[in-house]
Formats: sequence, structure tokens, C-alpha cells
Amino acid sequence: MYMHIFIRRFFVMIRAAVFGYGNLGRGTLCAVLSSEDFEPVCVFTRREKSEVCAAGGVEVRSSSEILDFKDKIDILFVCGGSADDLPVHTPKLAEHFNVVDSFDRHCEIKRHFDTVNRSALKGKHLALVSAGWDPGIFSAVRAVSKSVFPQSKIHTFWGEGVSQGHSEALRRINGVNYAIQVTVPKEDAVAAARNGSLAECDGKKTHTRHCYVAAAEGADRVRIENEIRTMPDYFEGYETSVDFVSEIELNALFPAMFHGGRVIADADGASAELSLKMKSNPDFTGAVLSAYGRAVCRGAKRGITGAVTVLDIPIADMLPPSVGRETLI
Amino acid sequence: MYMHIFIRRFFVMIRAAVFGYGNLGRGTLCAVLSSEDFEPVCVFTRREKSEVCAAGGVEVRSSSEILDFKDKIDILFVCGGSADDLPVHTPKLAEHFNVVDSFDRHCEIKRHFDTVNRSALKGKHLALVSAGWDPGIFSAVRAVSKSVFPQSKIHTFWGEGVSQGHSEALRRINGVNYAIQVTVPKEDAVAAARNGSLAECDGKKTHTRHCYVAAAEGADRVRIENEIRTMPDYFEGYETSVDFVSEIELNALFPAMFHGGRVIADADGASAELSLKMKSNPDFTGAVLSAYGRAVCRGAKRGITGAVTVLDIPIADMLPPSVGRETLI
Repeated sequence: MYMHIFIRRFFVMIRAAVFGYGNLGRGTLCAVLSSEDFEPVCVFTRREKSEVCAAGGVEVRSSSEILDFKDKIDILFVCGGSADDLPVHTPKLAEHFNVVDSFDRHCEIKRHFDTVNRSALKGKHLALVSAGWDPGIFSAVRAVSKSVFPQSKIHTFWGEGVSQGHSEALRRINGVNYAIQVTVPKEDAVAAARNGSLAECDGKKTHTRHCYVAAAEGADRVRIENEIRTMPDYFEGYETSVDFVSEIELNALFPAMFHGGRVIADADGASAELSLKMKSNPDFTGAVLSAYGRAVCRGAKRGITGAVTVLDIPIADMLPPSVGRETLI
Repeated sequence: MYMHIFIRRFFVMIRAAVFGYGNLGRGTLCAVLSSEDFEPVCVFTRREKSEVCAAGGVEVRSSSEILDFKDKIDILFVCGGSADDLPVHTPKLAEHFNVVDSFDRHCEIKRHFDTVNRSALKGKHLALVSAGWDPGIFSAVRAVSKSVFPQSKIHTFWGEGVSQGHSEALRRINGVNYAIQVTVPKEDAVAAARNGSLAECDGKKTHTRHCYVAAAEGADRVRIENEIRTMPDYFEGYETSVDFVSEIELNALFPAMFHGGRVIADADGASAELSLKMKSNPDFTGAVLSAYGRAVCRGAKRGITGAVTVLDIPIADMLPPSVGRETLI
């Protein structure tokens, strides 16, 4: 049977470490530091240790030292990019640690899951992939909606907010010094989703993309704009605007990586909408990772191994020990 | 490890029965009938069998025959009132069947849970109590919010919609032929919850109650209105309006038990809101019960016994077999 302890006053601390100390690593460490039941062990970086100063004065270690920490870490948060970092790091680390990652390339999740699963099973660890807000919280909302009303139409909107992946794509263009991409859902599409009249479609018809670009002096702005508009997967097929601004203006316009989104489910006779707003995408994602990290530790203690997603997690396992269920049910 | 079958094409049907055939029983049976993996066994009624005609031509049995169906039912949906029916029925039935109920008296859930738990453990069955939208879906949203941001302020609003319990309380007043109570959240309270400025408070300060009463001919309307306004727990302390209308007007005004509500969570740096609208409260609640019933069957197959709540259920267990996870993550 499941454990039913409505309020538990004493609890074992969870030894947590963060692998990769960029924006998401920092957000995750902040969530770990502010949680009652996490004890931060250290942060692992691929940079020079001396270059990194971790929040809360937490110790910084080189990523090459990671295996010295076997049996000293209950949960390892793997914080890196989904394009190049996580497909390599998570499978490697899941063999030696219980891990959580935020792999967010939707169409490749199944493959990532399978790779991590093999590795986690081999090392008898538990690995949760693709936590965050989408995939993550939004996946859970979509799945509950489909469970209750299998015929419901579900639409997901991202934004208004800064898309990290698209901003980075802009920055890779020759002649771009810095850039921010803001994703905005189309109001008429949101309204149509709410009244059930929006057909199933991809995000291209339901979002616009706004690019704010600080170009290098003398760079060919016409070429840059053309490269943006024709970039496959990222901008091609989207209603896209391109504005050239100075780097100073850019930082003033977008001081933080604000984001948000909504899932709208409509069935005959009922509709549900979850909307989310966050001042900082990496801080929010880090907080979500920390809650799922707690759940992974509890699952691992029960002997569960292999890879899982947020859909496999009982919510009770995410709750901090001092939060009474009674007030929430 | 958890099972990860992304699309399963063949599946064993779940034999389901409904105990109690009022509005909720009907809503639950409709959800069972429209699900790909449920096989409706029968409906149990405490009325004369001949008086009841179940949806889909499903067989009607007397509630006294229930024990003849041991081992013939995988999941029994216990559909009754939370005041008098469920506290008696669910513990009795959980000894012999895997059950789901919708017990919704928040302050008594712990006691109900404990009683059902003892009985389910004794009979080695699995019992999920307090499914529905609140408690139920809303409990899950509150718990995820508290897990991700333990310091978040969470407010729940009910309505605009017809409150079954309050409508019934009105109908018990001497001289009332029929009545409907509509609960409406105060707009300024909703706005304050959204911007994080609403203090923790009970529903009395954040909702108004509107009573539409069809009084008997010659009944003392002043006395009826006074009895309503001073009814403890139900109306005392609330901003309450009372309108006397004819029974015909009442049925025209409120053809269905529409309802809705929202959970608003606000933390420093992020906010989330789930809003829900339903044309029929019992139909929606029945659909929720059916999804959790599927999860209970899967949990029971793994050998889990005792009582659980929605917080103990992995969402993957609620999904119908033909719904691919890949499209949802």
C-alpha cells in the first residue's frame, strides 16, 4: 500500500547535486537551497572551477570528478542544453546516479527516454527525463485531460515569453552580436481553442515570433533578416518580425527570461485551461526539477529503477515533508 | 520499473459497475459506456429495480444483490451523497471490491479515508476516495503548486455554478417546493488572488450565494428568507441574495447543473491558474471518476491495497490504452 503520513515532522535530508551550472543549473540550485529537505552537496562544471561561483557558497567541482561522488549523492540534477548536452550526459550519469533532466525536444523524447532507460536499468538507478513546464507540468495537464475526456481537443500555447532555443539560433547567425526571440500566441487562436473551434494544427499557425537583434557594426542587415526568415524549423512558416536594436536596448527590454504559456482542453460539455506566467524560465524550471527530484528519491527508495516521465509520478511524492496533505485535498 | 508501453493495441476490458443511480451514477455510467476499455456489468439501486432505467440498456440490480457480484466486478463506482451515503457505503463496499468514490466534505476526508483504508486492507482491495473536480483535479493542482513552490499562496474559487449541496439545503426548508443555489466568486477576490494580494481566507469572503426559490402557495416568504440567511455553515456569513420565482421559471433558468471553478497559485516570480467550466457537474464528475477507476484497477493488479487519494495516482495509469503517451509528453 502507499504510505499515508499526513504530517511528518522528522525527515532524512536529500543529498542533491547539480551537473552543469548555466542558467538552469543556477535556478535548480536556488530551488534546492530554499527547500527544507535538500542538502546541497556540490555543483559540477565543465569550466575551470575557479571561474564558477555557485549560489549559497555551495562547493564547485569539476565535472571530471563526478564519479568520486558515487554513493554521496541521492539525486543529481542534469542541467544542460537539449541539443548537445543532455543526450550525452543523462545516459552516462543515469548509470551511476538517480537523475532528473529537462530534455525538451518533444519529437526526440522517446529516443532519449529509451537510451536513458537502458543505462539506468544497468546501474539500478531511477531517472526522470523531460521535467519542467513543457514538457513537464503541461504534459501532466494534457494527459489528465485526455484521461477524463479522451475525445477532447487539446491546444498548447507558448508565450508571451523569451524562447531560449530560438534566441540562441539567432545568435549563431553571422553578424549577430546578441539577440532575443519573443514568442507570442495569436489571440484569435487562443479564443478559438477556448470555444472549441480551433482545428488541430502545429504551432506555426498559432504563434508569431518576434526577433530583437543587435547586429555587429557594418553587418548586412538585409542578409541577416533573410537568414532568419528562411531558417527551417525555427522561423520558416512563422509570422516573424525582425527588429534591429542596440545591445543596451536589448538588455533594457528583456532583463529576465520571462515566459509563460497555456494548455486549453475542450470537450463536449466541459473545458479546462491551465495558464502559467513566470518571471524567469530557468528559475521556474529549476523549481519544477527540484520537486520531481524529491519524487525520484522516494521512488528509488522503493526499488524502482529505469527511466520514467512526469506521468509516472504520484504527486504525493513531490510534496515537501512538512506540507500536510489534508490542507490540499 | 514502471511499464512503458507507448501504444498498446490489445487490452483486457475492465468490468465496471455503478452503485447508486442518481445524477452522479448516471454521469459515471455514461463515461463508462463511452470508454474503450470499460465493460459495464450493471447498476445497483436502492429503489425498486423496475423503477430504474439505466443508460445504454445496462442491467439494473437491487443493491441487496451486490455481494453476488464479488469477483465479477473489477471496479465499483460508489455514487451517493457525501452527507449520508458514502460514509456508510464506501467502507462496506471497499471490503469486497476495488472502489472509487467522490466524498467531498473536505474537513471529514481524513476520517473517511481512515475508515475506508481499514476496510480495504481487510478485504485486500484498493479504494480511491474523494475523486471529482474538487476534491480531485483541484487537489492535484494545489499539491503540484505547493510542491514546486512551497511558499506559494493558493486560492480556490467555486462557480459560477449550481451548488448541489446548497440547493438541497434550501429544499429542506418548510414551504420550499424547489430551489437552486448559484455560487459566484467575487471578481475583486479573483483579481486579488491573481496578483498575489489576497490574504488566506475562507470562501465566505470570496463568494456570493444566490438562491432561487419556488415557494409553496401561501408560504411565509419572510420566514423562508430569514431561515436561509441564518442557516449556519451554508449561508450565514455569506453575501446572499434570495429571489422567489415559479418552478417553471426555475427549470427554464437552470436546465442543467452547470458549474466551474478555478485554482490560482501565486509565488514570488511565478503564477499559475487552472480554470474549469462544465455544462453538467455530475457528468464531469462521472468522467473524472471513470479515469481514476481505470487507475485503481491498474494499481490493484500490482498488488496495492488500502485507501488512496488522487495524490497517490501516477497520471499514466489514468490514460485509456489507445492514447499514446508520446503525443502528450
